Amino acid sequence: MPTLTRADAPTLDALFATRAQNTHPASVWPEEPEGLISLSYGFAAPELFPTTALHAAAGEVLAEDAPEALNYAPTYPGLVRLIAERMHERGIRCGPDNILVTHGSSQALGLLPQVLVDSGDTVIIEGPTFMGAVKYFAAADATLVTAPTDAQGMNVDALEAILRKQRERGVRPKFIYTIPTYHNPTGALMPLDRRKRLVALAAEYGVLLVEDDAYGDLRFEGEPATRLAALDEDGWVVHVSTFSKILAPGLRMGFAVARPEIIDRLRMFKIEGSSGPFMTRVVERFSADGRLDAHIAELNALYRRKRDLMLNTMARELPEGWQAEVPQGGFFIWVWLPGGMSATTLLKAAEREGVSFVPGTDFFANGQGDDAIRLAFSFQPEHLIVDGIRKLGVAMRQSM
Amino acid sequence: MPTLTRADAPTLDALFATRAQNTHPASVWPEEPEGLISLSYGFAAPELFPTTALHAAAGEVLAEDAPEALNYAPTYPGLVRLIAERMHERGIRCGPDNILVTHGSSQALGLLPQVLVDSGDTVIIEGPTFMGAVKYFAAADATLVTAPTDAQGMNVDALEAILRKQRERGVRPKFIYTIPTYHNPTGALMPLDRRKRLVALAAEYGVLLVEDDAYGDLRFEGEPATRLAALDEDGWVVHVSTFSKILAPGLRMGFAVARPEIIDRLRMFKIEGSSGPFMTRVVERFSADGRLDAHIAELNALYRRKRDLMLNTMARELPEGWQAEVPQGGFFIWVWLPGGMSATTLLKAAEREGVSFVPGTDFFANGQGDDAIRLAFSFQPEHLIVDGIRKLGVAMRQSM
Repeated sequence: MPTLTRADAPTLDALFATRAQNTHPASVWPEEPEGLISLSYGFAAPELFPTTALHAAAGEVLAEDAPEALNYAPTYPGLVRLIAERMHERGIRCGPDNILVTHGSSQALGLLPQVLVDSGDTVIIEGPTFMGAVKYFAAADATLVTAPTDAQGMNVDALEAILRKQRERGVRPKFIYTIPTYHNPTGALMPLDRRKRLVALAAEYGVLLVEDDAYGDLRFEGEPATRLAALDEDGWVVHVSTFSKILAPGLRMGFAVARPEIIDRLRMFKIEGSSGPFMTRVVERFSADGRLDAHIAELNALYRRKRDLMLNTMARELPEGWQAEVPQGGFFIWVWLPGGMSATTLLKAAEREGVSFVPGTDFFANGQGDDAIRLAFSFQPEHLIVDGIRKLGVAMRQSM
Repeated sequence: MPTLTRADAPTLDALFATRAQNTHPASVWPEEPEGLISLSYGFAAPELFPTTALHAAAGEVLAEDAPEALNYAPTYPGLVRLIAERMHERGIRCGPDNILVTHGSSQALGLLPQVLVDSGDTVIIEGPTFMGAVKYFAAADATLVTAPTDAQGMNVDALEAILRKQRERGVRPKFIYTIPTYHNPTGALMPLDRRKRLVALAAEYGVLLVEDDAYGDLRFEGEPATRLAALDEDGWVVHVSTFSKILAPGLRMGFAVARPEIIDRLRMFKIEGSSGPFMTRVVERFSADGRLDAHIAELNALYRRKRDLMLNTMARELPEGWQAEVPQGGFFIWVWLPGGMSATTLLKAAEREGVSFVPGTDFFANGQGDDAIRLAFSFQPEHLIVDGIRKLGVAMRQSM
């Protein structure tokens, strides 16, 4: 065998496909300095993880369904049925052909641009928004156009102006990404009239409407929101949701609901095939017979209490000048800082004091957001919510 | 809101990305007529699914690690460590940067062409081979070149001739896909001298060598095979394996071991991010402290017994003229049919008799294989292996 010297050796680089030439860090796991009270990330409340019930569900699956649950098998139809029933309760018409079970809603949001976006295609996002989804659109080389939001979610007048302008330029955007219910990061709940206009605009302009409903069931007061998918007559809505916030993120179980033409294509790009015969059964078994809804009711009582505690502590501990809407659900409070205060500067002071948050700039694709911050009330135990907000108050006074 | 008539309505089709214009059925689930004794698919033996131990492992994870196992978290480093230790036992040098945990080995095999294959690039496969992997290479529009195999696995002389010819034409293939240990479908075990030549050829020609080791631990006799990755000095081997055959396919837990430059890129295209904080912990917990190896020993005793039963029944029940090597591991027996008998014709007769297998043609990208069939001894209980082979014998006599 001839031995090649290093200099002569063929290099690896030339073997990479064009699409893999440019590396970018894949979903870098957020790291924060040790010992901080993190009010940053939208983690679930560990105090209500249903460990006993999950263990029981796993036991039932293993005792009764092991031959199918542990072998090669298609995605468990029982979970698809359960998702369909939950959608029907929300007025969303769908059957098995309309549903794809995914590895968390992340996978659904990551598959969508593979199916819809050629390099340079336009995607409309909200500002601010969940950049974890937008990073997938950017990776597909989408041209991002930001529609502003307000306390009622996406500003639909502004959206219409964008759509009109794009049409005048001959551009048909591929989809609009929106979080109408308990928005991340703002917590906003879009009212029904705006939802109707949004769905009508999507149909009029022939643009898909990706409804991220990750927080939709985390409702602390008021009536359940009418989902965009329930208002959709013509199949322009792609509804994406997850068991992460209502059961446990670590199970990685999400789903997309859409026209079969779209579901078939998402499935085509979901290279690993079915979604875990074992885990799909455990989630179904845990959730059946009203158990998931009972668990959601418990979660909402806890999250409402944490929200109120955070808001009350903010009122007491933060210096004047900030503003926030009361979120009626979800994980987050969006705080407008006192005039002239910079979120990124405040973060440095806050970390010195021992608390962290996510600066508003992390939720915009266009550089805005340094005048606001996102606080997560979901994760920390109640005494650390109080301590964290106190420390934030100290940091804010230092930054005024 | 103006209402569009159907004829005026913008169509969905124009929204699909170029790569999603052509639909193809994604991983169609194999369906066989009801009531057949299936000797077709490489399913695991359900009689040894470790349901009690898995339930215990899940219980330990939920009791001790729920805060991390059920929340958002990176892939569990403990499972990566366990994989690294298992690789070290096989003489494969690797650390956490060399390992990507995937949703079954399918996901790793599906991600590889995304990282390596531009349309038209050449990939060398074995004939016969596992077409479940090749479908991913074909979906990336690879030009497939088939290297023949024999009772010792890939014919390395033939491979060298292919590589030389490709080089003369100015073509550098992206990778060689091989199953050197207990081959699917032939059961062949590649001897060490051939493995050394194969690795040296990969380095000489600068072509990656994708070693599919799905069956590598299912060893019924002889010494453990020296994996290609253990012979690899220069990082040309991508080692892909799975817990599917040694624990349970339904857990969907596989992995790739390769240079960091490759692992980083595979991770980039693994859009859902980490691999199930809960399931990665359950698999690690089940496997630790020698439990996985003890389970593998039990599996190998069962699979060896099933292999022997199938071979003995074949000797008794099949008409003369067939030939088969005795596989020293794995799930399958590859049977050369009596001269002139067609596998696809035989399958029709076999299904009428109540037994099924996979015709050899399903394992070739180039139309060969109608002179052989693959029988799986892994899945059926022992009495149905006997009944199935009897029925196959009847069908063969009808087809002579």
